[in-house]
Amino acid sequence: MSSAAKEKKNLAKGFQPLGDRVFVTYTEELERTAGGIYVPDSAKEKPQRGIVQAIGKKVENVKVGDQVLFDKYSGSKLRIEDEECLILKEEDILGIFTS
Amino acid sequence: MSSAAKEKKNLAKGFQPLGDRVFVTYTEELERTAGGIYVPDSAKEKPQRGIVQAIGKKVENVKVGDQVLFDKYSGSKLRIEDEECLILKEEDILGIFTS
Amino acid sequence: MSSAAKEKKNLAKGFQPLGDRVFVTYTEELERTAGGIYVPDSAKEKPQRGIVQAIGKKVENVKVGDQVLFDKYSGSKLRIEDEECLILKEEDILGIFTS
Amino acid sequence: MSSAAKEKKNLAKGFQPLGDRVFVTYTEELERTAGGIYVPDSAKEKPQRGIVQAIGKKVENVKVGDQVLFDKYSGSKLRIEDEECLILKEEDILGIFTS
Amino acid sequence: MSSAAKEKKNLAKGFQPLGDRVFVTYTEELERTAGGIYVPDSAKEKPQRGIVQAIGKKVENVKVGDQVLFDKYSGSKLRIEDEECLILKEEDILGIFTS
Amino acid sequence: MSSAAKEKKNLAKGFQPLGDRVFVTYTEELERTAGGIYVPDSAKEKPQRGIVQAIGKKVENVKVGDQVLFDKYSGSKLRIEDEECLILKEEDILGIFTS
Amino acid sequence: MSSAAKEKKNLAKGFQPLGDRVFVTYTEELERTAGGIYVPDSAKEKPQRGIVQAIGKKVENVKVGDQVLFDKYSGSKLRIEDEECLILKEEDILGIFTS
Repeated sequence: MSSAAKEKKNLAKGFQPLGDRVFVTYTEELERTAGGIYVPDSAKEKPQRGIVQAIGKKVENVKVGDQVLFDKYSGSKLRIEDEECLILKEEDILGIFTS
Repeated sequence: MSSAAKEKKNLAKGFQPLGDRVFVTYTEELERTAGGIYVPDSAKEKPQRGIVQAIGKKVENVKVGDQVLFDKYSGSKLRIEDEECLILKEEDILGIFTS
Repeated sequence: MSSAAKEKKNLAKGFQPLGDRVFVTYTEELERTAGGIYVPDSAKEKPQRGIVQAIGKKVENVKVGDQVLFDKYSGSKLRIEDEECLILKEEDILGIFTS
Repeated sequence: MSSAAKEKKNLAKGFQPLGDRVFVTYTEELERTAGGIYVPDSAKEKPQRGIVQAIGKKVENVKVGDQVLFDKYSGSKLRIEDEECLILKEEDILGIFTS
Repeated sequence: MSSAAKEKKNLAKGFQPLGDRVFVTYTEELERTAGGIYVPDSAKEKPQRGIVQAIGKKVENVKVGDQVLFDKYSGSKLRIEDEECLILKEEDILGIFTS
Repeated sequence: MSSAAKEKKNLAKGFQPLGDRVFVTYTEELERTAGGIYVPDSAKEKPQRGIVQAIGKKVENVKVGDQVLFDKYSGSKLRIEDEECLILKEEDILGIFTS
Repeated sequence: MSSAAKEKKNLAKGFQPLGDRVFVTYTEELERTAGGIYVPDSAKEKPQRGIVQAIGKKVENVKVGDQVLFDKYSGSKLRIEDEECLILKEEDILGIFTS
């Protein structure tokens, strides 16, 4: 987990997603992975990237700290201390950045 | 349960939600949790926050007094003594504020 | 059962809802329950309140005489002796006023 | 079965609805039941009333001669000797007039 | 089977509907059954009548030669030697003329 | 299998449809079957005819070389060496020309 | 696997699709297979072709390196080092080029 992921994790303190939901903060800085994948934030209807901050009890395939890819219009947006966040269903997560 | 939650609970007295439904009053004052989550009420199509006042018999994951997050357009609105309330299905609740 | 409920029950005499259907008359006078819940009839897309007059054989959670809450646009409206009535599916009933 | 029902039954002679379908003729004259239910034919999107003339083999809850209530726009209309008729699915029948 | 039905049956020679599909030719001449049912071809969105010419292996309730009633807009139309035909799913057949 | 079918089969060489998919080439020349069925290509929303060139492993009721009837707008079109082809799901095939 | 496929595989390094998802890069150069299938990129709503770079754990019928055909509008597009990529569900893959 990067220091950025750790820092943002506080935002999810005191919040428990229900069932198959995943609480995600957006990755503000586009960091290149070893494989070089990134998602431009100006592109319309493109998937986006974030860090998992909290998960529901039925979530099986992602864990807190994972960097994930998801569709821009999936889930419900909310705002924490001026930062935009997202509640997604696990099935709307496209994949995980493993490196 | 905060004193605000207790005070509003009277609104649900004499009302029993059916099945998987949850009766919720909106949280008027935006209180920051330990994790700092709040939901701006001016944002369009943003999720919102409330307090569970009564639950149906099939509801499993939330209980009376829980502070919950839900999508702004979920459920059926009603009005009790000039306060707007909501009947939600449990599956439309995004998560619980645990602190 | 209030005297109003009994009086209206005659409207359902000779009518048997099929399956999971519930025959409901609207509550004309908004009576406050102990909990104070009422539904303003001028509000658009708001839930509404009525009294169960007859139920189908598969209905499990409401009975004749129950005061129920439902969405304004659920079910099929009909008119009996100048009074508007409603045939609902049980699953469209949001809850029961128990006091 | 009223004499009106018997008279119209000839219209279904030689026609066998398939599966869960019900062949219904409209009740032209609005007759009040003991309970006084009737459906005004000028009202838009209101349910309507008819007499069952023939039923498919999977129909369980209505029989030939039953007076039934259904939504105005359910089913497929057809015309027999200048009288409008209807083929409904059993699940689209709201209830039966038992008196 | 009327001679008209037999004559048209040649149109289906060499064609095997798949699964629950039914190959139907329209009944051009409106013949009254004993019960007098007919379907006017000028009416919009009205059901129509035809003769079954071939059936798929999963078809259970109609057979070749049956006169059937169906909705005007069900199925896929095709044309054989200048005559319009229809491939229907069995579930879209409303009933059978038995006389 | 006609020589036309054999000739076109090369187009599917090296392509394996997945699951319940069927790779079909359109029948350019309208050939009358014994039963005389053909589908005019100018008609809008009419079914069309083709020859099966390759099938997925879950396809059960059609085989390579079959002449099939399908709806004009079913499936995904593609182009091979200037000839338009089609990937259909097996369930979208209406029937087989057996002669 | 062609050298082109191998070269692009780096793009998927560090990315693990979830469940039944498949990570695909578009085939830029239209190469003819033995069977001659190709998909013109100027055609609207036509299927397209790509190379599988990574697969989720539930993917059963395609593997890394496979050349696949899919509908142009399936899946979620993303961009890696100036190259457009795609996350598809396995069921949206129409077939595999086997030669």
